[in-house]
Amino acid sequence: MTTHPYSELETRFSRINALSEAGGMLNWDMATLMPSGGAAARSEQLAAISVTCHQMMTDPKMAELFEGAHAEADRLTGWQAANLREMRRQWLHATAVPERLVEQISRATNRCELAWREARPASDFQQVKPYLQEVLDLTREAGQAKAQALDLSVYDALLDQFEPGFSSRRIDEIFGRLARWLPEVLPRVLERQRAQRPPERPEGPFPQAKQEQLGRRLMQAVGFDFDHGRLDVSLHPFCGGVPDDLRITTRYDESDFTSAIMGVLHETGHALYERGLPADWRRQPVGEARGMALHESQSLLVEMQACRSAEFSQFMAPIAQEAFGGGGAAWDPHNLYRLATQVEPDFIRVDADEVTYPAHVILRYRLETALIAGDMSLDDLPAAWNEGMQQLLGITPPEDRLGCLQDIHWFDGAFGYFPTYTLGALAAAQLFEAATTAHPEIPEQLRRGDFTPLLAWLRTNVHGLGSALDTDTILERATGAKLDETVFQRHIQRRYLDG
Amino acid sequence: MTTHPYSELETRFSRINALSEAGGMLNWDMATLMPSGGAAARSEQLAAISVTCHQMMTDPKMAELFEGAHAEADRLTGWQAANLREMRRQWLHATAVPERLVEQISRATNRCELAWREARPASDFQQVKPYLQEVLDLTREAGQAKAQALDLSVYDALLDQFEPGFSSRRIDEIFGRLARWLPEVLPRVLERQRAQRPPERPEGPFPQAKQEQLGRRLMQAVGFDFDHGRLDVSLHPFCGGVPDDLRITTRYDESDFTSAIMGVLHETGHALYERGLPADWRRQPVGEARGMALHESQSLLVEMQACRSAEFSQFMAPIAQEAFGGGGAAWDPHNLYRLATQVEPDFIRVDADEVTYPAHVILRYRLETALIAGDMSLDDLPAAWNEGMQQLLGITPPEDRLGCLQDIHWFDGAFGYFPTYTLGALAAAQLFEAATTAHPEIPEQLRRGDFTPLLAWLRTNVHGLGSALDTDTILERATGAKLDETVFQRHIQRRYLDG
Repeated sequence: MTTHPYSELETRFSRINALSEAGGMLNWDMATLMPSGGAAARSEQLAAISVTCHQMMTDPKMAELFEGAHAEADRLTGWQAANLREMRRQWLHATAVPERLVEQISRATNRCELAWREARPASDFQQVKPYLQEVLDLTREAGQAKAQALDLSVYDALLDQFEPGFSSRRIDEIFGRLARWLPEVLPRVLERQRAQRPPERPEGPFPQAKQEQLGRRLMQAVGFDFDHGRLDVSLHPFCGGVPDDLRITTRYDESDFTSAIMGVLHETGHALYERGLPADWRRQPVGEARGMALHESQSLLVEMQACRSAEFSQFMAPIAQEAFGGGGAAWDPHNLYRLATQVEPDFIRVDADEVTYPAHVILRYRLETALIAGDMSLDDLPAAWNEGMQQLLGITPPEDRLGCLQDIHWFDGAFGYFPTYTLGALAAAQLFEAATTAHPEIPEQLRRGDFTPLLAWLRTNVHGLGSALDTDTILERATGAKLDETVFQRHIQRRYLDG
Repeated sequence: MTTHPYSELETRFSRINALSEAGGMLNWDMATLMPSGGAAARSEQLAAISVTCHQMMTDPKMAELFEGAHAEADRLTGWQAANLREMRRQWLHATAVPERLVEQISRATNRCELAWREARPASDFQQVKPYLQEVLDLTREAGQAKAQALDLSVYDALLDQFEPGFSSRRIDEIFGRLARWLPEVLPRVLERQRAQRPPERPEGPFPQAKQEQLGRRLMQAVGFDFDHGRLDVSLHPFCGGVPDDLRITTRYDESDFTSAIMGVLHETGHALYERGLPADWRRQPVGEARGMALHESQSLLVEMQACRSAEFSQFMAPIAQEAFGGGGAAWDPHNLYRLATQVEPDFIRVDADEVTYPAHVILRYRLETALIAGDMSLDDLPAAWNEGMQQLLGITPPEDRLGCLQDIHWFDGAFGYFPTYTLGALAAAQLFEAATTAHPEIPEQLRRGDFTPLLAWLRTNVHGLGSALDTDTILERATGAKLDETVFQRHIQRRYLDG
């Protein structure tokens, strides 16, 4: 028996997380600059890291160490106790699923993702259905194993991988109210927009190098530190790396600079969260981001709440105009603000505005809970998808490419992830309102491109807490309320109906 | 007991090497594009990889597996048997040194390297001496442990880490003859050069982007495949990555394009060796490059033998002239060839031409064997260095910055490495002569920038053999002779005295 089981656990998790950080950096490299011929070798490297981490996590000695650490619980500080709780949660997730099933899932999702890459452009759901069935069956099996280990329902056990401590009961309530509110508010927003002259699009081309320069300038304004990170190009934008070395990526469209710039600002929100995590707890579970909902709240707070505001448009408009040498009414701050807040029901989630976005997520949540519960068969998925779109947004996808084939998530085995997008949007509204209530000067500061006080508030109230508390407690302490939709609804009302 | 101990060993080495490849990629990232603030996290990632690999290598079950594998030796193919031999060699190196000593060496070399980074610009050997003493003492201790495990002398055990199977007895003979030949040939080379009009230097500036473009063009001519590699910038040029994803770096001087271009061609030689290693044996010891002497032979064959030739100058001159838009006598191929083969005794090894380079290496070899044997104290190192330079090249460094403080190797714990530079130069001459004897059209092909037949010969006779044979056997099969200096001497005679 080790004399200090808790600190032995810290040592082991530190090693596991250092290895997994190495894997993260290699994933970034693969997405940004690896030559195509490096793919096979890279898979071997990533597999070796992942198998090694899994073996360290499932080492039989771990159970003994957890037992010992719980026996010394009264000697632990608050942070240590929280770390022990999070270590245990990660360990339960890792050990709940037998190695055989982990491997089966890995192989099945690889096969399914490949099939999906062919089926999507062909808009052929039947082609990928058997692969998705295999992934669904195995995911359900893993979910059952995790449910037993964590004493949760199957769906909640899957959700817990992405948003620890949250439940489908909470989501049902919140999404239920959102689903009733949306068909009431959306037509009014659309009607109001149609009554106005449409905003003008600045005319390109917008050279990639200039967009990148502008992106960097805005990232710095928001608070990104280039001594601790980089901006590069990838097919799908993401924020990778580690808290002290954050790797943001974007993609450029020379006919429209706003998509890259808003993407960069979104990823900067993710990066600021990671950067602000408690430095004393690097590579420990309690030092990690709390969950995907809070993570998304930080990207949406920066992008949607702060940077798509009328105030930020006033800061950005002259800088963007100077960067691209444009002129005329299209570059007017109010015009750019109206462009950044256009609402239009569309088939594709990733292109959706903040008003219609929740509908996309609610639809996926309904479908994935039914699939996991076995209440719906994959045969019925395409039709159920299209009916849901009609009911929630009043549009029906003409083909599955624009319907149930659009997102990689399920085909990659990620069930329980979708809700965090909208939970994040709600939390973003709550946090931004609380920050501006505490510091009423924030909107005026955004007009000058000064994010310092907003960032300081987020550092204290969100980032610096890591995983010491659960999402609801973090929100309650910061805003006075648990996660709910009322502030988000108020924000939509203000921006799209009153403003 | 495992039923197939040999294949269990293959599985384990494959995992160890995949992890160590991951570490290699992270080292490349650190040297090329990591932001400064990422250093501490990166150290943790690299340390976790290295500790994990070391633990896997020293797992007590390994001894049992080797025993079992030797028992089934008669059922192994030739390549498997060679792989087993190389696995065992690596395992003996890893297990010979106790964990405590590995850690002490790692810490001591870190400290010493930091001290050296301050002492070198200050030209203050006394400042770094105590740190170097610690590194030397620990290296000697590790060398003794390895000597016992490998049944070699202490210096040969250190040499075996870089050039397996070679011995100081062989080096003494070869370097002894070179040291007698050099003072005889160098004055004649210098005299002949002084009798000619000095070559003209093309006038810059040479913009970095143009140099890079030219570098890529020449890399492709030599045979580098950009689907399996990249060219980037770092402070110290190197060839990193893995055989299917090779990462070459260089640095640019806008007042002189030849240093970057020749550097790129040198690293391309290293890359071609890695790329040509037997694909069926990826991540297995027998699939690795044979040793540092053969590795250096491949970079020097490309740079010194092929690309600093009169023939290649004829290919490169018009391309370079076009790239930089230059004109006049300086861009004449013969002038560029004379520039690429200028000889001048100098204090700094890395700037040395191919005629004086062996003197630098012989000096370091004499000094490091004396230090390891305990025949010389560090107090006497600076004076011994300067005397050696005077004796071998007729110049005395005015300060230690240009003398015994110039190279990082010893301060980083690398004793036994230096000889491989010159062994590589000798092997390069042997291999190039053998290739051109087998294919007399090679020089004419180089004139057209066609490396295909030369590369094919190297693939068959060197690259594709991996570590299946030892260096001497590879050379003997390819050239008819073991490693020796006669062909190198003939090459110097032809290029610098007869040509």
